[in-house]
Amino acid sequence: MARINENFLNLQKSYLFVEISKRVEDFKKRYPDRKIIKMGIGDVTRPLPKACIEALHKAVDEMAKEDTFKGYGPEQGYLFLREKIAEFDFKKRGVDISADEIFISDGAKCDTANFQELFGEDVKIALLDPVYPVYLDTNVMAGRAGEFRDGRYSNIVYLECTRDNSFKPSLPKERVDLIYLCFPNNPTGTTLTKEDLKKWVDYAKDNRSIILFDAAYEAFIRDENVPHSIFEIEGAKEVAVEFRSFSKTAGFTGLRCAYTVVPKECVAYTKDGRPVSLKELWHRRQSTKFNGVSYPVQRAAEAVYSEEGQKEIKENIDYYLKNAELILKEMGAMGFECYGGKNSPYVWVYGKKDSWEFFDELLEKAGVVCTPGEGFGLCGKGYIRLSAFNSFENVKEAMERIKNGF
Amino acid sequence: MARINENFLNLQKSYLFVEISKRVEDFKKRYPDRKIIKMGIGDVTRPLPKACIEALHKAVDEMAKEDTFKGYGPEQGYLFLREKIAEFDFKKRGVDISADEIFISDGAKCDTANFQELFGEDVKIALLDPVYPVYLDTNVMAGRAGEFRDGRYSNIVYLECTRDNSFKPSLPKERVDLIYLCFPNNPTGTTLTKEDLKKWVDYAKDNRSIILFDAAYEAFIRDENVPHSIFEIEGAKEVAVEFRSFSKTAGFTGLRCAYTVVPKECVAYTKDGRPVSLKELWHRRQSTKFNGVSYPVQRAAEAVYSEEGQKEIKENIDYYLKNAELILKEMGAMGFECYGGKNSPYVWVYGKKDSWEFFDELLEKAGVVCTPGEGFGLCGKGYIRLSAFNSFENVKEAMERIKNGF
Repeated sequence: MARINENFLNLQKSYLFVEISKRVEDFKKRYPDRKIIKMGIGDVTRPLPKACIEALHKAVDEMAKEDTFKGYGPEQGYLFLREKIAEFDFKKRGVDISADEIFISDGAKCDTANFQELFGEDVKIALLDPVYPVYLDTNVMAGRAGEFRDGRYSNIVYLECTRDNSFKPSLPKERVDLIYLCFPNNPTGTTLTKEDLKKWVDYAKDNRSIILFDAAYEAFIRDENVPHSIFEIEGAKEVAVEFRSFSKTAGFTGLRCAYTVVPKECVAYTKDGRPVSLKELWHRRQSTKFNGVSYPVQRAAEAVYSEEGQKEIKENIDYYLKNAELILKEMGAMGFECYGGKNSPYVWVYGKKDSWEFFDELLEKAGVVCTPGEGFGLCGKGYIRLSAFNSFENVKEAMERIKNGF
Repeated sequence: MARINENFLNLQKSYLFVEISKRVEDFKKRYPDRKIIKMGIGDVTRPLPKACIEALHKAVDEMAKEDTFKGYGPEQGYLFLREKIAEFDFKKRGVDISADEIFISDGAKCDTANFQELFGEDVKIALLDPVYPVYLDTNVMAGRAGEFRDGRYSNIVYLECTRDNSFKPSLPKERVDLIYLCFPNNPTGTTLTKEDLKKWVDYAKDNRSIILFDAAYEAFIRDENVPHSIFEIEGAKEVAVEFRSFSKTAGFTGLRCAYTVVPKECVAYTKDGRPVSLKELWHRRQSTKFNGVSYPVQRAAEAVYSEEGQKEIKENIDYYLKNAELILKEMGAMGFECYGGKNSPYVWVYGKKDSWEFFDELLEKAGVVCTPGEGFGLCGKGYIRLSAFNSFENVKEAMERIKNGF
């Protein structure tokens, strides 16, 4: 009898998006003529930069001719792309990361989901609350979560992020092994300073823990004191791994390209305390279970670092940031407590009421769809997430409708 | 202290390709003027079909405009592609597989590597020897392999495929839970008939085992009595999962697209014997850990099923099969025992000597690089694999050189 991995049965079903679409469908039936503006979606809306489009066409043409055709590429990614990343995303910011510490993949979701495979079954996991659900669910599947009761798993350490601590998580009271941090944060849109982040690096060094740092929203950072990479913090290379993505940076959500940085200094340990290079383990994992990213897509990612590409992605992100600014300003003027939205496409709004009640009000009074905060964890209760991934016209109209409706 | 998954330390290092390139480099130094013909590579050489190139360009243009831009797609793959697959690869062959049983991915390597996650840690694994190493290594990483001694893992059941059993594995003596089968086989190039395969399906039904059927080389099948899909066997849907790929079918090794079929009837069991749908588990796994395949690549895969696409892939595969035919004919005429090569791009040659000795002879006497069979397992000793993925001219020249050299 082939037995299943019963940890899968310990996963909690997410009714969030099902429930949202149920309520939206119901609204549409009742008001067939009212236009809905969707501000709940965490997906880009602007088309790919021209530099990427050109690179894609060129690479596709290479695939059409025998002498330029590309078959299997290196599992770790083509060197032309890894070298550009090392130079532009790290060396230009004074961070010494080399091309062989960079692993190209088809998504930060896959990488943040798969990286836990390198660790023992009994490592202790800490993650933020509210949180991107992938970190949690993949550890549930791996059998690390414990029992689920009252909305939480017994073996997971939840690092609470609320208005009371300005969304800056405190160091855990019990020691933990793996710490998932995501800044600029999804869903709250908040950031940490270098000083804040240094506390975590110091903690990880003192406890021989590993920080899994998700920097998927790095491109939205505009403030000088917000670190773009955890490796800007001294000593971080020994204790941190960083996940980056072209999804939000360059609109690649439908094209699929991301990368993970595993510095050569970064080690975890065997039971008897022997250090083992995580870079070597990840390389072995990726070369065994993954076959590299589509060649034309890697060429498109390379084009992000061209002069034209850099200009275009900045324009696109400025566009979304302008949307976020308007949301912050208008919602703030209406008296709502708002967070994030400055180095992030997300505005986290405190509604002083149940998330779903707030959701219904926005829908009924303004025809605006948001994401109820409790979909991201217990600490999301009472909040909603508004996304700046939309046209400026839609955002403007949404704000006017909310103003008139409330 | 963050502890590693020590199962990774139980992986055996593969020196195969390192050793091959060492010997080739040494040869080049000694004979800088001799041209080397590589017949060891399992990668396509012909460019992408024109139908796919056109579909790629068209999809790239869609990504350039706001109103046709595609962001995140469905994790399971776009319906336009899944419907084409269900129709062409299954319904047209009389096999009733529906679009919702098909999961698009970026490679059969990933799927065959990841599928074991759905099963308990203590399931018993059976795999062919010789074998594609991914099935084994991923189970080593998951802790199912046991101790390594004398070239084998203690908990793995090896199904031997040799000239003595015409490369048709016998049913295992001890019961097993998961059975990895690959036909047309890599590396031997041999196939099973429907009657052969039926034995395995019956075994799986009797033992509540699951067959993981890798049909990556399906497009090379020309004989009528060789099944294209395990689902041609009655009752297979209850006990089998099938992996397919566009890599060898349409030259997508650098583009990355594959799919896995998990029929709704297929179940594994909880400890207390309750059946659980593998389709539901795989859907949960994929939607949690994967974010779908690049949109232009899915459009290219769709184009494989156009009239022009079908014609072009047939021409390409006929081209490789003509190469294989020549290898079979010429090597046979020289007195070598040859297997495979008829419904497969691989010819498996018995050398009556050590694989590496045979490798060296081919290199020294003919400047031809092959793959030593022992790289695929103990039962590969004494064999080499010759690949038909090359130009016809190169294959012809290689055969002439071998004829003259031996």
